[in-house]
Amino acid sequence: MQTKTVKEIADYVGGRVLGDESVLIRAASTLDSAGPGQITFLSNPKYTPKVQATQAAAVLVSLPVTTSAVQIVTEDPYYAFMQVVVLLHGHREHPPVGISDKADIASSAKLGRGTQVAAFVSIGENVTIGSNCYFYPGVCIGPNVRIGDDCIFYPNAVIYDGCRIGNRVIVQSNASVGQDGFGFATHKGEHHKIPQIGGVVLEDDVEIGAGCAIERGTLEDTVIGKGSKIGDAVAIGHGVRIGPHCLLVPQVGISGSATLGRHCVVGGQVGIVGHIKIGDEVRIGAQAGVINDVPDGATIVGSPAIDAGKARRAYSLIEYLPEMRKKIRDLERRMDKRDSGSDGR
Amino acid sequence: MQTKTVKEIADYVGGRVLGDESVLIRAASTLDSAGPGQITFLSNPKYTPKVQATQAAAVLVSLPVTTSAVQIVTEDPYYAFMQVVVLLHGHREHPPVGISDKADIASSAKLGRGTQVAAFVSIGENVTIGSNCYFYPGVCIGPNVRIGDDCIFYPNAVIYDGCRIGNRVIVQSNASVGQDGFGFATHKGEHHKIPQIGGVVLEDDVEIGAGCAIERGTLEDTVIGKGSKIGDAVAIGHGVRIGPHCLLVPQVGISGSATLGRHCVVGGQVGIVGHIKIGDEVRIGAQAGVINDVPDGATIVGSPAIDAGKARRAYSLIEYLPEMRKKIRDLERRMDKRDSGSDGR
Amino acid sequence: MQTKTVKEIADYVGGRVLGDESVLIRAASTLDSAGPGQITFLSNPKYTPKVQATQAAAVLVSLPVTTSAVQIVTEDPYYAFMQVVVLLHGHREHPPVGISDKADIASSAKLGRGTQVAAFVSIGENVTIGSNCYFYPGVCIGPNVRIGDDCIFYPNAVIYDGCRIGNRVIVQSNASVGQDGFGFATHKGEHHKIPQIGGVVLEDDVEIGAGCAIERGTLEDTVIGKGSKIGDAVAIGHGVRIGPHCLLVPQVGISGSATLGRHCVVGGQVGIVGHIKIGDEVRIGAQAGVINDVPDGATIVGSPAIDAGKARRAYSLIEYLPEMRKKIRDLERRMDKRDSGSDGR
Repeated sequence: MQTKTVKEIADYVGGRVLGDESVLIRAASTLDSAGPGQITFLSNPKYTPKVQATQAAAVLVSLPVTTSAVQIVTEDPYYAFMQVVVLLHGHREHPPVGISDKADIASSAKLGRGTQVAAFVSIGENVTIGSNCYFYPGVCIGPNVRIGDDCIFYPNAVIYDGCRIGNRVIVQSNASVGQDGFGFATHKGEHHKIPQIGGVVLEDDVEIGAGCAIERGTLEDTVIGKGSKIGDAVAIGHGVRIGPHCLLVPQVGISGSATLGRHCVVGGQVGIVGHIKIGDEVRIGAQAGVINDVPDGATIVGSPAIDAGKARRAYSLIEYLPEMRKKIRDLERRMDKRDSGSDGR
Repeated sequence: MQTKTVKEIADYVGGRVLGDESVLIRAASTLDSAGPGQITFLSNPKYTPKVQATQAAAVLVSLPVTTSAVQIVTEDPYYAFMQVVVLLHGHREHPPVGISDKADIASSAKLGRGTQVAAFVSIGENVTIGSNCYFYPGVCIGPNVRIGDDCIFYPNAVIYDGCRIGNRVIVQSNASVGQDGFGFATHKGEHHKIPQIGGVVLEDDVEIGAGCAIERGTLEDTVIGKGSKIGDAVAIGHGVRIGPHCLLVPQVGISGSATLGRHCVVGGQVGIVGHIKIGDEVRIGAQAGVINDVPDGATIVGSPAIDAGKARRAYSLIEYLPEMRKKIRDLERRMDKRDSGSDGR
Repeated sequence: MQTKTVKEIADYVGGRVLGDESVLIRAASTLDSAGPGQITFLSNPKYTPKVQATQAAAVLVSLPVTTSAVQIVTEDPYYAFMQVVVLLHGHREHPPVGISDKADIASSAKLGRGTQVAAFVSIGENVTIGSNCYFYPGVCIGPNVRIGDDCIFYPNAVIYDGCRIGNRVIVQSNASVGQDGFGFATHKGEHHKIPQIGGVVLEDDVEIGAGCAIERGTLEDTVIGKGSKIGDAVAIGHGVRIGPHCLLVPQVGISGSATLGRHCVVGGQVGIVGHIKIGDEVRIGAQAGVINDVPDGATIVGSPAIDAGKARRAYSLIEYLPEMRKKIRDLERRMDKRDSGSDGR
C-alpha cells in the first residue's frame, strides 16, 4: 500500500484539483464508506448527494460538486478510480517461487525468462511459455500448449493439450480450458464420442473466471477474442467464437458454434443456443434465453429474448395475467348477455 | 457403523417409545426402502400411509401412527433422524495423514494442534490455521489466510490470499473462495481490471458446495454469514453480504454488492442482480430472477420475481396466452360487428 | 493423423462410393470449411446447396447429391463422420507416464495392468482400479472407490470416498463426484448437516463434463445410467437416478431424488425440482423449469415447463402482452360506452 498526495494522484490520472492538493491519501474506498485519508469516486449523478455528505478526503468527479472533500475533476471518474486503486494498492503480488522443485515440468517444455512455477504444477511435453508468467499450485498445462508473456494461472486451473494462449491472459482457479466439446453421434440409441480435434484460443488480455468450462472445438477452434472478460462458472461450447472486448457475467452458457461480435455485454445466467450469430455491441439482460440471431447494437432481455424496449414491459405484465383472463371472461359474459339480449328482442 | 437399541436411540433424541424398546437398529433408511434392522422417519403427514405399510424396524414420528414398526415419538422427527444418522453412521472419517511430507507448507504458516495436511496441499506464507482442521489433497491456501478450528477443505478447494475463515467451516471439492471480483473499468472500449482489495469472510459453520465460486470484494469484504450453507456451483459476486443461517441451493448466482438478511432460502438457479437488498426470512423459488429489493418474510418466484401468491397463478397462465389472444380477437370481431350493425341500423 | 483413400474410408464406414475411390483424404472438416484433401458430411438436407458448392475432396451423404466432391453414400452420415474422425484423427493420446513416483498411492490400493497415474494424483486406501485407466495430474480418488477398466480422469477431477465407477467412464477436469448432498435438518433456526451415507454410481460409458458437481446420496446412491453423457458445469442432487443413454447439456441442475428414465435429452440450464419422475425418451428444452412428473416421450419447454407444442407459441406471445392488455381495455371502454349508450336510450 502506498500513500500519495491529491496532487500526485491528480497528475497520475490527468485530473484537475479543486481544494487542497497536499492532502494525503492512503486508500481507495466506496462512496458509502470512504473516510479520512481515503479517496472515492462519483460516476452516476444520482449519487451526488452522497458526495455532498461524504467523509472522504478526496473524490473523483466529472463535474464539480458542493462537498467538503477535495475534488479531482476528470473526464471518466470510474476509469480514474481504477487507476488510483492500482496506484495505491496495486495488483496482487505473487509469492516469489522461481521454478519449484515440487513442480513437474516436461523436459521438452520451454519457459521464458522470469516465468515462475509453484509446487504441484504440471507442464506437459512441447509446451512453450513466454516470459514473466506465473503458475499457481496445482495448475495443469497439457502437452503442446503455447502461452505468451505475462499470463497468470491461478490454483488448479487446467489447460488441455494444444490450446493457444496470448499475452497477459488470466485464468482463475479451478477453470477448465480445452476439455472435450459435448459432441456425440447417436446411433441405434447409443451416444458415440466424436474426437474433438479443434483447440481453444484465448487471445491477448482475456480473463477467464473461476470454475469456467471452455470446450475445445470439434473441428475448428473455440476462440475468445482479445480483451474479453469471462466471469465465474461460465460454460462455453465447442467452436464458439467470441469477438474482442466482450463481457460475459458469471454463469452464462453458450452452446456450440454460436458467434458473438465485439463489445457485447452478456448478463448473468444468460443462455445462448448453438449456431446463432450475435452482432457487435449487443447487450443481453440477465437470465435471457437467446434463440435467434441478434443484429448489431440490439439490447435484448427475457426468455425467449426479445427487444428490451418491448420486453421489460411485456415480462412485467405476466403478473397481470390472472386479471387479464378474468377481464376477458367478464367481457365475454357481457357480450353474450348483450347478444342474447339482442336475439331476444 | 454402530448398532443401537430403540431405547438407546430414543434416549439420544429425547423421544418416547411406543413398542419394543429392545429392538436392534443397524442403519437409517428412507421411508420407501427401510426394512428389518432399519429406522426411518415421518415428517410430512401425507406420507402416513407409507409408515402404516413400512417394513422398517422403527420409525420416528411426531404423533403416533398405526404401524407394525416400533415408534419413537419426538417433536421434530427430521431433526431427530439427522441425529440418528450421526449416531449410527457418523460423519465422514478422514484418512489419518498427519502433516504429509508431500505437502508444501510455507515456513511462516502456523498450524494448530491436531490439524492434518494431505499430499499436494499448498499453504502460503503467514497463514494461521486453528486446531483439528483437515486439508485434503490438492487444496491451495493463499498467503495471509486465517482459518479457525475444526474446518474441512476437500480436494482441490482453493482459498485465495487474505481470506478469513471461521470455525467448523466446510469447503467442498473444486470450490474457489476469494478469486478476483468481476470488476473492470471500461475506457475507450477496453476493459481495465480493477484490483480487488477486499477479501472473503466465511463465518463459523458455513459450508461451501463443490465447484462454487465466491468472489473477493472490490473494496470491502464479501461475507457469508454464520451457519449459512451454500450448494454446489453457486456463484457469489464481489462484496455480496449474506446473513446468518441462509440456505442457497445449487447454481444460484448473486451479483456484486447484493445483500441478504438472515434465514433466507434461495432455490436452485436463482439469479439476484447487484446492489439490491433482500430482507430476513425471504424465500425465493427456483429459477427466479430477482431485480428489486425484497422485504422481510416475502416469498417470491418467477423471472422477474414477484410475490409467490400472485406468481404461481400468473406464470401458470402463460400456457393460456394463445387462447386469451384468440378470445380478444373474437371479442373485437363481435364488437366490430355489433358496432357496424348499430351504425347500419 | 492418418491419410486414407476414399475407398478405405468407405469400406470402414460401410458406404458406397460415387466418384474416384483413389482420392486421398487427410482430415475431417466442416461443410463450410472443408477443402482439398478433406472430408465432410451432410446430415441435414437443408444444407444440400453447401454440398453442391463445397471444395471438399469427399462428402458423406445419405442420398446422392450433385457435387464435384466424391460421395460416400451411407445410411447415417453423421455417425459415419464420427467414425471417420476417429479413423483419421483418433481420440486423444495420453502422455505415457506409467505410475509416476510423484503420485501418492495408498499401499492398499490395487491398480490393474496398463493403468497409468500421473504426478500429484492421490489414490486412497482400499481403492480398486481396473486395467488401462489413465489418471491425469491432480486427480484425487478417495478411499474405498471402485473403478472399472479403460476409464480416464482428467486433471483435478475428484472422486469422493466409496463411489463406484464402471468401465470406459470419462471424467473431465475439475469435476466433483460424490461430494456431500445438500442435506440439512433445520432445528430452531440452525441447519444441521445430515451425514450423506449413500454414494455415487457412474455406470459403464458415462462421461462427466468439466466442473460438474454430482452429489452422493443421503441414504441411497446417486446413479448415472449406462452411456449417459453429462455436459459441463452440471449439478446433480443427492439420490438422483438418471437412466441409461441420456444427454444432459451444460449447466443443467437436478434436485435431490428426481429420477429420469432412459434416452432423455435435457437442454442447457434446465432446472428439475426434487422428487419428481421424468419418463423415458423425454426431451426438455433449454432453460426449462420442470416442476411436475413428465410422461414417457413428452417434449417440454418453458419455465414452468409445459408441452412444447403449446409452449413455443405461448411463450412467444409474452411479447404481445402490452398489446393484449391495451385491447382488453379498449374493449371494456367500448362495452361500457355501449352499455351506457343502451342505458341512455
